Amino acid sequence: MNSGVRSKEEVLAAIERRRRRPHVKLMDEHVTLAHGAGGRSSRAMTEALFLPALLNAVLEELSDAGVLAPGSSDTTFAFSTDSFVVKPLFFPGGDIGELAVNGTVNDLAMAGATPIALSAGFILEEGFPTADLERIAQSLGRAAEKAGVVVAAGDTKVVERGKGDGVYINTAGIGLVDTRSTLGPDRVQPGDKVLVSGTIGDHGMAIMVARGQLALECESDSDTAPLNGLVNHLLAACGDSVRWLRDPTRGGVATVLCELALAGDVGVTVYEAALPIRPLVNGACEILGIDPMYVANEGKLVAVVAADAADQALNTLRTGDGGSQAAIIGEVRAEPPGMVILETSFGGTRVVDMLAGDPLPRIC
Amino acid sequence: MNSGVRSKEEVLAAIERRRRRPHVKLMDEHVTLAHGAGGRSSRAMTEALFLPALLNAVLEELSDAGVLAPGSSDTTFAFSTDSFVVKPLFFPGGDIGELAVNGTVNDLAMAGATPIALSAGFILEEGFPTADLERIAQSLGRAAEKAGVVVAAGDTKVVERGKGDGVYINTAGIGLVDTRSTLGPDRVQPGDKVLVSGTIGDHGMAIMVARGQLALECESDSDTAPLNGLVNHLLAACGDSVRWLRDPTRGGVATVLCELALAGDVGVTVYEAALPIRPLVNGACEILGIDPMYVANEGKLVAVVAADAADQALNTLRTGDGGSQAAIIGEVRAEPPGMVILETSFGGTRVVDMLAGDPLPRIC
Repeated sequence: MNSGVRSKEEVLAAIERRRRRPHVKLMDEHVTLAHGAGGRSSRAMTEALFLPALLNAVLEELSDAGVLAPGSSDTTFAFSTDSFVVKPLFFPGGDIGELAVNGTVNDLAMAGATPIALSAGFILEEGFPTADLERIAQSLGRAAEKAGVVVAAGDTKVVERGKGDGVYINTAGIGLVDTRSTLGPDRVQPGDKVLVSGTIGDHGMAIMVARGQLALECESDSDTAPLNGLVNHLLAACGDSVRWLRDPTRGGVATVLCELALAGDVGVTVYEAALPIRPLVNGACEILGIDPMYVANEGKLVAVVAADAADQALNTLRTGDGGSQAAIIGEVRAEPPGMVILETSFGGTRVVDMLAGDPLPRIC
Repeated sequence: MNSGVRSKEEVLAAIERRRRRPHVKLMDEHVTLAHGAGGRSSRAMTEALFLPALLNAVLEELSDAGVLAPGSSDTTFAFSTDSFVVKPLFFPGGDIGELAVNGTVNDLAMAGATPIALSAGFILEEGFPTADLERIAQSLGRAAEKAGVVVAAGDTKVVERGKGDGVYINTAGIGLVDTRSTLGPDRVQPGDKVLVSGTIGDHGMAIMVARGQLALECESDSDTAPLNGLVNHLLAACGDSVRWLRDPTRGGVATVLCELALAGDVGVTVYEAALPIRPLVNGACEILGIDPMYVANEGKLVAVVAADAADQALNTLRTGDGGSQAAIIGEVRAEPPGMVILETSFGGTRVVDMLAGDPLPRIC
């Protein structure tokens, strides 16, 4: 994402480029769960349907947050939105209220912005217990306090029984763009290192276990957490050496790295042996035949930093809040452009593709 | 709503006032459709459940948009959110996409802010036709263009068949606070005039007819439209004489005037004979025994202006976009504080209460 200020001419030029691009056609006649999974189908729907309809250059970056510099102001701010439909509403390590705050706070943090305010829109199903709603609202309030943001706007709608599923929450967020680094896939260069701030797959596994879909006799905690503190810590230490940030939610680490490879037109190599994975998550993934690189996280970031700042970035993450398990997990290469390659623990290599289908609907 | 900049001390004082206020208990054990209707039950849920949970002074104004002045910036902006669950998705005069833009644009305009950017979060039901989704997205894009806002952030989630109802849309919006007037119920004074920008009840009636719930052989158009242009026109002409603005959506003109009377601790008198109502809407309301003052609007504003500026405000609205049927419909009085009184066409008076229950769920 380009967090710089754009002139009106640049915006119009970007719109013109989009207009000239061949129109992608969405082949699906009906919405499927895969369209909500954050992988290949989600991207196809965005490119074929939403982008042509909502034609404008700000949205087109396909990033988690748009960046705006209103004409009469010298402030550049980031704007982001996310709806939360997680099932179950309460799970080990968190609930939908906490998730709804952290999800949007993290999207802003990944855009290199300091989150300042959130909105919260609730869609309630008729018959939902108000005691549960109160618990969720309180959790949302506590999470906002923890992340240092105010909930500045709210809305509640109710739909009939059987037209919802308890509670859906949308949060949108505003952040002030940090000037210590300009983040974006176009800043990523061959030689840069790829870091992750901690163990991967924790949130997705917590949801799977909480749903009782697995014959596992264990409880696994979600990692839901705000990342704005950690990003602040990282930018303070490494400044402009930080090139790109993303939180690997739906679709996991694999999907965000595929997006980076495509957007930056670079190759990304991941060292399988370096991926931090909790033994419980690793074991469950092995039993289930799931690749933890595709399992969702809700309190981890993936960072690309300049090679000469990689060790400092690693140490900074490790001393930061929630970053003790941080690791350098890969590097950016010139070849093959647009692709992610995994160097396996057995010395082989394989292509890491974007998530297809939806192995785990309603993860967030 | 107070659109001025607040110091940290003022914010903390407001939080302390809220903490000291006796805790209202929500008596309902389960969510009902009335909690989403924008009337008495919605207010009870907000006061008893959401406000204590999301304790902060910005939200507490109970207005349609929060106002923020981030520390490092000299810009004051308004932030608003609204979810749209209207049924049917397509109705005479509009659809959910257009409604989702205009609803949030209008909330910002009513806060005296110039809307600049929206976010759009879609919650889709598995199996929904993508052709319909495309039609909705395009309508949303056109409405944004018409209102002069960019869609700067987007998100899509999919829920299983039977856990949604085609499409729900949340929009959040950012606007820059206009300095030509400070709007708020505390600025409303006895003697001020109450204006409405056009015929009332058009949106609600369009939805009722579109649902086929009425044995009426007619088609009635929704009034969905952006109001930011009209507000700009009004502020340019009348400036600080404009004291308070609100768009009478869910709960209609009656409910927003009740909210004004309570928040401003004033009486509001409405002249029934002065209410502009289309003959078709009036006739349908009579047949159905519905008071048009409670029927939703999606392209009308209610304004309170100083008495000496009322005629100018009326002429300004009448020459503005969508304001040709504007009328002075009442006045603010000292007595009875907190109440709305209707002077009926037959020379009597009656109390106008806030909407109770939900005569028409999912109107927006």
